[in-house]
Amino acid sequence: MIELSSSTWPDIRDVLSAGPTVAVLPFGALEQHGPHLPLDTDTRQSEAIARDIAAALDAVLLPSIEYGNTWGNAAFPGTVSLSLDTVAAICSDIAASLDSSGFALLVVVNGDYGNRLPLQVSVEKRAASGARMPVLVLDYPGLTEIGDRVKESPWAAPGLCHADELETSMMLAISPATVHPERFVVEYPELPPDFGQRPQALAGLGETGVFGDPRAATAAKGRQILAHVVAESLTAIERTMRAIGIR
Amino acid sequence: MIELSSSTWPDIRDVLSAGPTVAVLPFGALEQHGPHLPLDTDTRQSEAIARDIAAALDAVLLPSIEYGNTWGNAAFPGTVSLSLDTVAAICSDIAASLDSSGFALLVVVNGDYGNRLPLQVSVEKRAASGARMPVLVLDYPGLTEIGDRVKESPWAAPGLCHADELETSMMLAISPATVHPERFVVEYPELPPDFGQRPQALAGLGETGVFGDPRAATAAKGRQILAHVVAESLTAIERTMRAIGIR
Amino acid sequence: MIELSSSTWPDIRDVLSAGPTVAVLPFGALEQHGPHLPLDTDTRQSEAIARDIAAALDAVLLPSIEYGNTWGNAAFPGTVSLSLDTVAAICSDIAASLDSSGFALLVVVNGDYGNRLPLQVSVEKRAASGARMPVLVLDYPGLTEIGDRVKESPWAAPGLCHADELETSMMLAISPATVHPERFVVEYPELPPDFGQRPQALAGLGETGVFGDPRAATAAKGRQILAHVVAESLTAIERTMRAIGIR
Amino acid sequence: MIELSSSTWPDIRDVLSAGPTVAVLPFGALEQHGPHLPLDTDTRQSEAIARDIAAALDAVLLPSIEYGNTWGNAAFPGTVSLSLDTVAAICSDIAASLDSSGFALLVVVNGDYGNRLPLQVSVEKRAASGARMPVLVLDYPGLTEIGDRVKESPWAAPGLCHADELETSMMLAISPATVHPERFVVEYPELPPDFGQRPQALAGLGETGVFGDPRAATAAKGRQILAHVVAESLTAIERTMRAIGIR
Amino acid sequence: MIELSSSTWPDIRDVLSAGPTVAVLPFGALEQHGPHLPLDTDTRQSEAIARDIAAALDAVLLPSIEYGNTWGNAAFPGTVSLSLDTVAAICSDIAASLDSSGFALLVVVNGDYGNRLPLQVSVEKRAASGARMPVLVLDYPGLTEIGDRVKESPWAAPGLCHADELETSMMLAISPATVHPERFVVEYPELPPDFGQRPQALAGLGETGVFGDPRAATAAKGRQILAHVVAESLTAIERTMRAIGIR
Amino acid sequence: MIELSSSTWPDIRDVLSAGPTVAVLPFGALEQHGPHLPLDTDTRQSEAIARDIAAALDAVLLPSIEYGNTWGNAAFPGTVSLSLDTVAAICSDIAASLDSSGFALLVVVNGDYGNRLPLQVSVEKRAASGARMPVLVLDYPGLTEIGDRVKESPWAAPGLCHADELETSMMLAISPATVHPERFVVEYPELPPDFGQRPQALAGLGETGVFGDPRAATAAKGRQILAHVVAESLTAIERTMRAIGIR
Repeated sequence: MIELSSSTWPDIRDVLSAGPTVAVLPFGALEQHGPHLPLDTDTRQSEAIARDIAAALDAVLLPSIEYGNTWGNAAFPGTVSLSLDTVAAICSDIAASLDSSGFALLVVVNGDYGNRLPLQVSVEKRAASGARMPVLVLDYPGLTEIGDRVKESPWAAPGLCHADELETSMMLAISPATVHPERFVVEYPELPPDFGQRPQALAGLGETGVFGDPRAATAAKGRQILAHVVAESLTAIERTMRAIGIR
Repeated sequence: MIELSSSTWPDIRDVLSAGPTVAVLPFGALEQHGPHLPLDTDTRQSEAIARDIAAALDAVLLPSIEYGNTWGNAAFPGTVSLSLDTVAAICSDIAASLDSSGFALLVVVNGDYGNRLPLQVSVEKRAASGARMPVLVLDYPGLTEIGDRVKESPWAAPGLCHADELETSMMLAISPATVHPERFVVEYPELPPDFGQRPQALAGLGETGVFGDPRAATAAKGRQILAHVVAESLTAIERTMRAIGIR
Repeated sequence: MIELSSSTWPDIRDVLSAGPTVAVLPFGALEQHGPHLPLDTDTRQSEAIARDIAAALDAVLLPSIEYGNTWGNAAFPGTVSLSLDTVAAICSDIAASLDSSGFALLVVVNGDYGNRLPLQVSVEKRAASGARMPVLVLDYPGLTEIGDRVKESPWAAPGLCHADELETSMMLAISPATVHPERFVVEYPELPPDFGQRPQALAGLGETGVFGDPRAATAAKGRQILAHVVAESLTAIERTMRAIGIR
Repeated sequence: MIELSSSTWPDIRDVLSAGPTVAVLPFGALEQHGPHLPLDTDTRQSEAIARDIAAALDAVLLPSIEYGNTWGNAAFPGTVSLSLDTVAAICSDIAASLDSSGFALLVVVNGDYGNRLPLQVSVEKRAASGARMPVLVLDYPGLTEIGDRVKESPWAAPGLCHADELETSMMLAISPATVHPERFVVEYPELPPDFGQRPQALAGLGETGVFGDPRAATAAKGRQILAHVVAESLTAIERTMRAIGIR
Repeated sequence: MIELSSSTWPDIRDVLSAGPTVAVLPFGALEQHGPHLPLDTDTRQSEAIARDIAAALDAVLLPSIEYGNTWGNAAFPGTVSLSLDTVAAICSDIAASLDSSGFALLVVVNGDYGNRLPLQVSVEKRAASGARMPVLVLDYPGLTEIGDRVKESPWAAPGLCHADELETSMMLAISPATVHPERFVVEYPELPPDFGQRPQALAGLGETGVFGDPRAATAAKGRQILAHVVAESLTAIERTMRAIGIR
Repeated sequence: MIELSSSTWPDIRDVLSAGPTVAVLPFGALEQHGPHLPLDTDTRQSEAIARDIAAALDAVLLPSIEYGNTWGNAAFPGTVSLSLDTVAAICSDIAASLDSSGFALLVVVNGDYGNRLPLQVSVEKRAASGARMPVLVLDYPGLTEIGDRVKESPWAAPGLCHADELETSMMLAISPATVHPERFVVEYPELPPDFGQRPQALAGLGETGVFGDPRAATAAKGRQILAHVVAESLTAIERTMRAIGIR
């Protein structure tokens, strides 16, 4: 793995000239994660997963984007949100830069629900315009599956993972010092009957920003979750690498 | 100082309700800095300065933007550039978010020459539209002055500071492990007669990306430079804090 | 059901003043559907489903949009495509118009895969800006489920429904005169290993534009499919109607 | 005439390969037309005229756009308006699609006053950018002339044709079931002294949305009007066909 | 008449506080006008007419815009063109500025064919958005009529007025020193059969940029033309002034 | 010097074919300059300087843009402001036009502080996109230096030059009839502590719009100032002409 941030330009020139090169971009966010998890939870998680992916592929790890499209949590102080269009523009600009430098593939490891739409917009516009370098956006593949397997507390909603046992477990594995067990609260906000059917601010639904029960979280579970998501991500990436003939 | 990334939303709620709060945003870049400095040199420098500023002011330190408007170095592999409009949009979105959360002032510590224009665009548009929260952009105030004082090697051009003795000194102070003294090269590219008069790619001017002589760089000089820029920044910020009545 | 196109403005004034009113918009496309199905297949299907929905809800049926975001089939003559941004703008303008007229809810019955992303963009931007009237986009809920039940031929890919037994069945039910059984061809294009993982033109994958086997299609199957999608759509709509307090 | 909507892609491939092909696009609107005419009056009229044009030229008839730029009638319930920019974008996208498919000419039969400006914008931008395929926008050529000839009631303003004897006659010819003679009202709103000199909402001028007297309308007059507009349209189209060397 | 350019701000404050104030903006262009007329012909003409209008109304004369949307003549050296969008933006910004200053009406005296469309776009968008201050765009009302009366040479096309007897006469009246009679050439370019039906570059049609015969031009005719256009303009303006209740 | 406005297209064709041609564009503004100077002060000054530059270089003088980005003075009646984006668009369109006509260099003589940012944006975007013809923006080089030399009254702020002794002197030299000595007022508004550090409306700072003391102004000083700025401008232009190989 090469970390782009601490490399020099001749380092990257050498990597690119040695063969088809994959870049991995963690795309995080800065939004409320309850009273017990830090605001950059999404960034740390996507960075940890991206790092493992880059290590497995001997790929180039890009520095993280630490802000995302998080209007739905804007009412919680400390949430700092980019607009949908800005998130899309960041992805498009980075992809265009890597494309012209000769990278073979950009993998975006997306850590925030609100970034899904703008990242897809960016990627589809590139495809429709016939851009050379493909971009693959991954939204934690396999997370729900492994969640079903390791979770002891119920989901606040199927697949909804926000400041709950899953996220807390991952953070205990990645960055235990930022987790505050003494502030664990359990909240299962009453969700509107059409939750998940159309975009909706999370902010109005609960009091604490927690959607579930963090109490059963453990670092071991976190490591299990991360390993599964990394493995599923690698499977997906390898499919695309084969599709474009670099694996 | 409160680091936003590792805080929780109730932490920030408490800070904001305690009185007028200043936020400090390091805006970096990812561009070539010769064979001996890392691609994220601008980010690390602006982050170090922003951190000292935030500490002095007991302000909220925001996570860094690690990409900037660096088209002029795009020809060097590893440079990853955002467009002028994207840099402006990032600043505008973050400012709007902090404004609606009730922050009193945003200070942007800009670490890259190419970000100056888009950051000013963002800030002027906010002012012209009558936005409440002011934004102050700082481009390393006092850097040329302290450079004149500590530099032993000549400038490649007056005030031009790129992978030279100054930047290398700062990096030796901030992050010595990322500096490669064994790759030090000296280059004084021949500059066009109107250098600095109009925008121009740096990439075509030299071979190595170095503009000067890094050999005389020391960590001690770096600390001296950083301290001076921090002090000048604080003076500037205090002027604005007085102007808006929070100091 | 009130058909907006053939109503007069006093008719609509009366409907709106009688209580919360739902509008239903079929969003189609004009793209290749093999040698045996017409170019407006997506429009006819979404219109048929939207009509049944409007009838069941006593809602206002809007005229169809007969063009969609179909760049992926642009290489087939007769495909006429709108851009992603134009599809989003159409949805946003119509929603804004209905919102200011006092409608309670807009349901978009989307008939084309390529419209999913722009319709979601439109809807999320409305939500993020705090618009009053909600918009619910439906992408044929339950289609894969009923497909699994009625299909005799294999899927070209899981859930991929293009000019195959399912679409041909629906068209036999809706508009048999436009179906050309004498031109039925069977094609199972070899799909790239990462099919479905990232946006990709369908046009390059096969010869005929058919993805499956239309030969087992029947009008009876078509009616069964349509009824299931309508029923699932109504369930979804009722969830949103309850969420906004109009059911 | 080939109707694009009910054709298949091989049909269109064959048409295009047989020689220079003209496409005809009806551009309608969804706006109030008094208590006696349906909201889609403009769409039905432009579609009828476009169909006759396409038949006469053996051209390809495109599906109608059933929404237009009708902000001036937005205050009447049931009017659903697109913005000026969206109408222009629709025309530009369709033209670009047909251009890349190899069509020789696009004729837009515009049925709504509010679409004139955006359609011209779209067409001029194409011309200024040097696009290959020309686009000809027709705004019912000859309508005022034939109106002067057949009308028995006075104009509400010279050339102003909205829910009056002319439009009612055309609708009696095209779609009698949608006309409600029992709701005929006569209204000659007092017009501001500078009516027609600058853009102005129709909505504030009258009570009923009628601008004239529909009582003398007959289907026979409608057929006469339509035939005249079609003939004048064909004359105009032939001029352009000769100009570009396909007639 | 008050000339805004040479006034001071207290002068304008006094004018505005004395009662409803009309502003008059000449919108010109910089484009080829044959070998005998200067490139700023359109600007000088619109300025002369605007000045007479402002004098008659005791209105405020704004400084001229000396560039217009003249892509159709871009192939002639010396033509300098703004885009359609830029012309519209200039008009919108100036109108917004005057609106917020309290002017009662802006009259735009448009001197270039290519500006018609963007000026109408600007004005319609203002109307659709409900802006307070109306804008009236005048495209030399009565010009064709007076041309028919005074012209001795034939029109190159009905109403087409470019570097011909009419424009040359006006320039002899306004600015005789800029007219070069020794370079008079007569050219009646063969026009395509659909000339005037759709946007088309003038540049490709002739050799000299003249569309007609300047030889019969006289200053007396020019004065007659200008007086007629001014009179017709005043009639139009008075209609709008009555419509908005300031006359 | 060739004045573009009064030239004909064959004149410009001949100039361009004779060798590398420089164009000079005065970019002014229409904003308050106290009770004693006209609203178009910036335009007249930039035009006078541009004219002398063009004469010295035998260059082509373009007609002035008489409006600028002056939101900061919008509260003073008579100020008419373009937006930042419109100023940038004007510069970009003119540059593109001259570029495609074959000019070798565009020099913009900027007369208004508010235009600096948008002109730089325009110029940088051209550079980043690899446009052929360079654009050099000059903001009165040497003005502060000569001001320090000739001024008898103190500066309102270092380098701040608005309706003061310097501007009044220049206007006495350029256009004495527009200067009203009988209305001279002296005002040294109290400036906020961070004046000049971030964009701020001038309008709120003083009463009269004067920033200094116009009483010591003389035409002789004005001529001295103008001559110095012209000389410094020529030095800068010659640097760029050498850089691009045309001097």
